[in-house]
Amino acid sequence: MEINGKELALRLGGRVIGDDSLIIRGVGSLNASKADEIIYASGRKNFHKAASGNCGVILTKKAFSDNDKVLIIVDDPRSAFVKCLMIFQHVNTYSGTVSERAIVSDTAQISKNVTIMQSVNIMENVSIGEGSVLYPGVFIGNNVKIGKNCLIHPNVVIGERCALGDNVLIHAGVVIGADGFGFAEGPDGKQLKIPQIGAVVVEDDVEIGANTTIDRATSDVTLIGSGTKIDNLVQIAHNVRIGKNNIIAAQTAIGGSTVTGDNCIFAGQVGVADHCVIKDRVTIAAKSGVQSKEMEEGKTYFGIPAREIHEMRRILAATRKLAEKKH
Amino acid sequence: MEINGKELALRLGGRVIGDDSLIIRGVGSLNASKADEIIYASGRKNFHKAASGNCGVILTKKAFSDNDKVLIIVDDPRSAFVKCLMIFQHVNTYSGTVSERAIVSDTAQISKNVTIMQSVNIMENVSIGEGSVLYPGVFIGNNVKIGKNCLIHPNVVIGERCALGDNVLIHAGVVIGADGFGFAEGPDGKQLKIPQIGAVVVEDDVEIGANTTIDRATSDVTLIGSGTKIDNLVQIAHNVRIGKNNIIAAQTAIGGSTVTGDNCIFAGQVGVADHCVIKDRVTIAAKSGVQSKEMEEGKTYFGIPAREIHEMRRILAATRKLAEKKH
Amino acid sequence: MEINGKELALRLGGRVIGDDSLIIRGVGSLNASKADEIIYASGRKNFHKAASGNCGVILTKKAFSDNDKVLIIVDDPRSAFVKCLMIFQHVNTYSGTVSERAIVSDTAQISKNVTIMQSVNIMENVSIGEGSVLYPGVFIGNNVKIGKNCLIHPNVVIGERCALGDNVLIHAGVVIGADGFGFAEGPDGKQLKIPQIGAVVVEDDVEIGANTTIDRATSDVTLIGSGTKIDNLVQIAHNVRIGKNNIIAAQTAIGGSTVTGDNCIFAGQVGVADHCVIKDRVTIAAKSGVQSKEMEEGKTYFGIPAREIHEMRRILAATRKLAEKKH
Repeated sequence: MEINGKELALRLGGRVIGDDSLIIRGVGSLNASKADEIIYASGRKNFHKAASGNCGVILTKKAFSDNDKVLIIVDDPRSAFVKCLMIFQHVNTYSGTVSERAIVSDTAQISKNVTIMQSVNIMENVSIGEGSVLYPGVFIGNNVKIGKNCLIHPNVVIGERCALGDNVLIHAGVVIGADGFGFAEGPDGKQLKIPQIGAVVVEDDVEIGANTTIDRATSDVTLIGSGTKIDNLVQIAHNVRIGKNNIIAAQTAIGGSTVTGDNCIFAGQVGVADHCVIKDRVTIAAKSGVQSKEMEEGKTYFGIPAREIHEMRRILAATRKLAEKKH
Repeated sequence: MEINGKELALRLGGRVIGDDSLIIRGVGSLNASKADEIIYASGRKNFHKAASGNCGVILTKKAFSDNDKVLIIVDDPRSAFVKCLMIFQHVNTYSGTVSERAIVSDTAQISKNVTIMQSVNIMENVSIGEGSVLYPGVFIGNNVKIGKNCLIHPNVVIGERCALGDNVLIHAGVVIGADGFGFAEGPDGKQLKIPQIGAVVVEDDVEIGANTTIDRATSDVTLIGSGTKIDNLVQIAHNVRIGKNNIIAAQTAIGGSTVTGDNCIFAGQVGVADHCVIKDRVTIAAKSGVQSKEMEEGKTYFGIPAREIHEMRRILAATRKLAEKKH
Repeated sequence: MEINGKELALRLGGRVIGDDSLIIRGVGSLNASKADEIIYASGRKNFHKAASGNCGVILTKKAFSDNDKVLIIVDDPRSAFVKCLMIFQHVNTYSGTVSERAIVSDTAQISKNVTIMQSVNIMENVSIGEGSVLYPGVFIGNNVKIGKNCLIHPNVVIGERCALGDNVLIHAGVVIGADGFGFAEGPDGKQLKIPQIGAVVVEDDVEIGANTTIDRATSDVTLIGSGTKIDNLVQIAHNVRIGKNNIIAAQTAIGGSTVTGDNCIFAGQVGVADHCVIKDRVTIAAKSGVQSKEMEEGKTYFGIPAREIHEMRRILAATRKLAEKKH
């Protein structure tokens, strides 16, 4: 991809200060950039850093100082930066064919324009929708259904009877459909395994981060609602029902049978106990531990155990003051 | 599997109210069920929900209201539900053979009725006991021993010299036998790697959840005691010795050289420091951080750092009250 | 490897008490040892345990009691133990060739003495330096560069355009170069994916533990500084810059764009928020949650949110005392 400053400014809805014929070939960063790259500089400090670097073009709200860079001035440089990333992203092209070095059961229903790379293993009665791509090392269990335009990175495992909607993006090493963690203690203190005969359903437009695990339900489905984005190393336990457009940051764990509303946010390393009910637009701050009570719509919670965030802040302030007194 | 209500009630030790000839073909849930499925409804509220759904049969302690469903009445519906799951679970049948598309060293000792699927890699001097099953993408390192009737899901890695007992169930993506995390800081601030020349031993009847990691010992073995059940994304460090029948929930980390007794419970996201000693039947509440002191038999601990749970609750109540006063 | 006590003592800089012709073939542990093994016993209690066990030789600072074992006396038994591990470690030899059962693109530049085992997948325009070893199931994406003498364990995934320096050791299941977790909320509440077009650079002498994930940067590189050691199940988010010789223990998560100095230590299950700046030689205690403020050089922090450790200890002591009063 290459584009001159004039054309790029047009596509970003901005205007150029300086030589608008300069050719731009990529997006740089404040840490490293080249003469044919554009950089997003938010605020004065970053603008100065950008102006003293190697980049060709600075994307900014205004010129914070005189300098010899070409500028593209936009009202909302953050959004324009995202547009730049879209313009300059490397879009992989895929063969749209099944590699001879994949192992695909004869019973599979593979739609047209599906790319199945080498070393993929597809078991019995699997269906895969148009345009989907499976990287090497992916395992697809019996009776799995995969929708259209899914992108499944290397070494992902999808267990039997699980289903993905359309436009699902799964990063490397994800495991969908391992058994839920369910045991009953016997009279001898030994743990008896409760069979986990359910499945996992992932709706449209979901993204799942690397090495995340989503367990199958006991006799139902574990559900990931459409549009939800899940980060790396997250644990979703059996029978969980995640709503639409949730954001679940890295290393969060959602306990068994918990239900979340739409547009909830779970920051990093949050833990939610079993059987919680979390209403729409709830935010849980990082490292919080949510116990089994209802979380009210639109509120933010923090702490172990998690409390409404203002209450938690009062507790933290009070204990800090107490320690100062004693000191 | 299909069975009529009369026969199912007999197997569950219960009695039928309604048409006992109705055919049952699976276990449904309160969220979704079909006319040929049985649902477990605990309590009045769930009974009403079940009664207004599509299921054919409700498994319950009593009829909480008039309704047109067939009921199976049992004293302990929770246990009967587990029995139902066992009756209706889908039992996979395996070929009992070694796939031509697996790569198995000539030096391997493979017992009879072992299933090794395509894309499995087995290195030198490995032994595998009768009835064990290895899914695609599994890697077995040099000199590994695997017992009878083990089930190893896709993309599991078992490093050299590690050993599994009988009836061990390992979910996808597990790594057993990576190097323990041991370094000595040199005078120049650089970290010198301490060789990790030990191994991991997993005893009989252990289950290990997806993407969990269990490191090899420095010069000993990291030991997982028989009957212990480990959830997803758990970290077991080098030289740890886990007792029998422990329950270790998701994202827990057990630090190096820590020893646990029998029948201990670690709830989700617990962290245990290095060199702790945890006695029999200790429970650690979710998100707790256990430091290096002895944990007394049969007690429950909570908090960071973890304290006996009643003490921790008093601390939480006192700080909450303090904040209210200041407010 | 076998060596007699006299020669071993010479190599450890110590002296023998007892029969210095005894042959030693390995390193045992207090839990289990054989007559041809040496054990490291720190302190009186461990010495007694060692003396009553099966080992042939005890490595110790002094004889704490009369006994019939051969002793090797050294000033610093801990360091001597590490030397023993180095002497007795099993060093694997590799073929230095590319397996016919690996799938390697014709465009790959493979240096001499590189070992690529069966079932490895190498995509387009990859370069691999002398002496590196790739285990089965490893996936190397387009345009990846790997330095000299790297050791990459089974089922590791390295995404396109990422780069490793020399002597990098990566344990099984690691994912380098999954997309950073970046979304912008649209007016309809849906999350728009921000393309992640950067990469990951891992410098020389880094070790990365099993199932750890390191995300690619948005338009820059995520950087792991030379000599840094990362444990299992760690999350490094996009645009992070880790300094040199950091120690990052298991299940820690470092948030997006955070920068760490050199020789920092992150204990287990630490969480660091986005955009933090952590100076040289900072230590973060286990389970702490670091918010976005500067962490001062050489200091230790603890708690959620993390405070300077002495302040945090005062807070914990004060709250504990408060609870006792109320009781």
